[in-house]
Amino acid sequence: MTLHLWCERAWLGGDGVEHGVVLEIEGELVSSVTTGVSACPSDAAKREGVTLPGFVNAHSHVFHRALRGRTQHGAGSFWTWRAQMYDLASRLDPDSLHALARATYAEMALAGITTVTEFHYLHHDTGGRRYADPNAMGHAVVAGAEDVGLRLLLVDACYLEGGIGRPLEGVQLRFGDGTAAAWAERVDAIEARGHARVGAAIHSVRAVTPDAMEHVVEWAGSHFAPLHAHVSEQPAENAACFDAYGMSPTQVLHEAGALGDRFTAVHAIHVSDDDIGLLRGSTVCVCPTTERDLADGIAPSGRLRDGGVNLAVGSDSNAVVDLLEEARAIELDTRLESGERGTHSAVELLRAATGGAGIVVGEPADLVTIGTDSVRLAGAPVDLLGALVFAASAADVTHVMVGGREIERDPESVAIDLDRAVRALWAES
Amino acid sequence: MTLHLWCERAWLGGDGVEHGVVLEIEGELVSSVTTGVSACPSDAAKREGVTLPGFVNAHSHVFHRALRGRTQHGAGSFWTWRAQMYDLASRLDPDSLHALARATYAEMALAGITTVTEFHYLHHDTGGRRYADPNAMGHAVVAGAEDVGLRLLLVDACYLEGGIGRPLEGVQLRFGDGTAAAWAERVDAIEARGHARVGAAIHSVRAVTPDAMEHVVEWAGSHFAPLHAHVSEQPAENAACFDAYGMSPTQVLHEAGALGDRFTAVHAIHVSDDDIGLLRGSTVCVCPTTERDLADGIAPSGRLRDGGVNLAVGSDSNAVVDLLEEARAIELDTRLESGERGTHSAVELLRAATGGAGIVVGEPADLVTIGTDSVRLAGAPVDLLGALVFAASAADVTHVMVGGREIERDPESVAIDLDRAVRALWAES
Repeated sequence: MTLHLWCERAWLGGDGVEHGVVLEIEGELVSSVTTGVSACPSDAAKREGVTLPGFVNAHSHVFHRALRGRTQHGAGSFWTWRAQMYDLASRLDPDSLHALARATYAEMALAGITTVTEFHYLHHDTGGRRYADPNAMGHAVVAGAEDVGLRLLLVDACYLEGGIGRPLEGVQLRFGDGTAAAWAERVDAIEARGHARVGAAIHSVRAVTPDAMEHVVEWAGSHFAPLHAHVSEQPAENAACFDAYGMSPTQVLHEAGALGDRFTAVHAIHVSDDDIGLLRGSTVCVCPTTERDLADGIAPSGRLRDGGVNLAVGSDSNAVVDLLEEARAIELDTRLESGERGTHSAVELLRAATGGAGIVVGEPADLVTIGTDSVRLAGAPVDLLGALVFAASAADVTHVMVGGREIERDPESVAIDLDRAVRALWAES
Repeated sequence: MTLHLWCERAWLGGDGVEHGVVLEIEGELVSSVTTGVSACPSDAAKREGVTLPGFVNAHSHVFHRALRGRTQHGAGSFWTWRAQMYDLASRLDPDSLHALARATYAEMALAGITTVTEFHYLHHDTGGRRYADPNAMGHAVVAGAEDVGLRLLLVDACYLEGGIGRPLEGVQLRFGDGTAAAWAERVDAIEARGHARVGAAIHSVRAVTPDAMEHVVEWAGSHFAPLHAHVSEQPAENAACFDAYGMSPTQVLHEAGALGDRFTAVHAIHVSDDDIGLLRGSTVCVCPTTERDLADGIAPSGRLRDGGVNLAVGSDSNAVVDLLEEARAIELDTRLESGERGTHSAVELLRAATGGAGIVVGEPADLVTIGTDSVRLAGAPVDLLGALVFAASAADVTHVMVGGREIERDPESVAIDLDRAVRALWAES
């Protein structure tokens, strides 16, 4: 089936916006792009505003959505927040995770996200008991994405220790497979339905020994699969790593062979120039609204970019689901630290939010359209990329398409589903 | 005329939310507050969601709204941004300022702002020539607020020098009255119509000498009027002040008698512990989204609070108009610097955003209602103040009332007016 979209304006990945763009879509793929078409052809669907490649959410813990608005009253640190998150993790089962994933991914679709990378570590039943289907939890996540029509990269995390040299305890037992070999065996059995595919994750140097890391790296290599890891989110992680191994988390991952063009380091806040040198060619996923919330600090995004590291963004804890806000926060938080404006251009920030490939012939038709008639964008200049990144929000998204198929979701029903899924977990009416 | 509002939930200023609150409003004022009314009485208007005191925007430069999305592409600093802002200032006249103020204040009303403090320094015609009405520009601002029905505090700024010891030049000539006495004479002639009142401002230590400051302080004192000043927004301002006077901007203002309970220091980012000691009993207005944008830095909000300084928030450059975002940014940016969560409670942040008085019998019925059925607030806990501050946005505002009178504005028409007012200034079609 061939579909034609006429976009009033479209950002194809370059330095500016094109006017009057016709996208031809055959099945799932963009088959041609024509610019300068001043009026909507009769056989085309009309997209007012500006159409972009869909947003790519490169780091999500979907179940953390149930913590939104519930961890903010008191004082504390990342580590006290983690105790609250563990309480939540202890409450989930495959059914409740499926309901929460479906509703949260629908929230993401409303925000223009077309691909989500789910960093998944909540694998087993209470006490670490295997479910009848050992991938029941992963399959619940896959089903949630399939229900919505979102493209999913499920990076299944190996999680073996509760801190360097410490056994898993309490809810952490739900994360563990015992050995990297058992992890790999389980992951090989994941069925990726819908728009899902499977990748690997090393949870962090806190949770995986260098020996086990090598197994995960080997699995990712033999499957040509993406490999993710949390890296240097907190100074305490660095300190524990230097104590145990005499090197930084990035160096440990490097020694295990993890780094390279299939590797994404999540956070990479407390990294040295040497670390950045090792990360050249890899991707760093920054998650600024979560990093503000958890008092993690500010990633050295300018130095990473200068060092040949690709930048991506993630909604991480899903306390906020708005990749435009994540993208501008990269630059804004850098300004707070540097006292200078413009480390990153608007186009660079948009590339981080969209995976960087642009709208490309032969690639999947994953698209988001942003309305430009809200008060937020009123008065935006003709070259509106700066306004888009710094003034628009998820609330301005009007259309979302994954693989040539429109995702139509009513915001009110999504909110009702989400409300129900969250309250059920906290045993609220 | 008596009006009854039944609020599903209301925040009256305390530590939590009350359920089923009936507000009785006589004329402009709240005449009684009754809690625990489970169903909407037949004679009451229904407010679903949560009703709060209206947001108080304690610092605005309304004309900067026309810069939104237009200063973000390049690199640079506060000072290169200021050159762009001066270009804009050179284009305005009373008619175009009126149109821009009316549309921008309507955007503020949609965001739940019921009171705005306009820090006004663009007084005169090109080259500093007086308009036939020397307050033509101030009156344009007053008319804009009156058109919308917003409560306005017009703090008219004395601006005499273009940097310490340097004459005004270029567009700055439009800001100057020559002497503090001429400033006072002009300000005495402002006619405050509608919900407007007049206060005073010392633009900054860069623009007003200590002698002239004393005149402004005297004017404010004899009129029992609020007095505002930009204070230590940038390190360069501190350096120039120490060079010229051997003391900090706060100390200079203190010596001039400016500080006290009618005084608001705007920004107060680069302040010492001694400065904070002097500011006890004054208010500091932080403007976090602008301070991020202009790479100003992070105000020491925790130390200010601990030092007995009141906190307020402002939208300042109006690149963002969302006081919930300003309020949470106080805490979030503090986390980035401190590595700790919870310097400020949600209630403290809401007090900063609403002027702190709560919904009080005998005070004006200035109210905002936030809908709680969006995806942003889905799953919020019963005690929803944390969720409100950290997850809601201006887009969630459903009702706004100033002095007992509903402000009804259609978002689409506001956006069209705003678009037209901004484009006219840049000579765009």
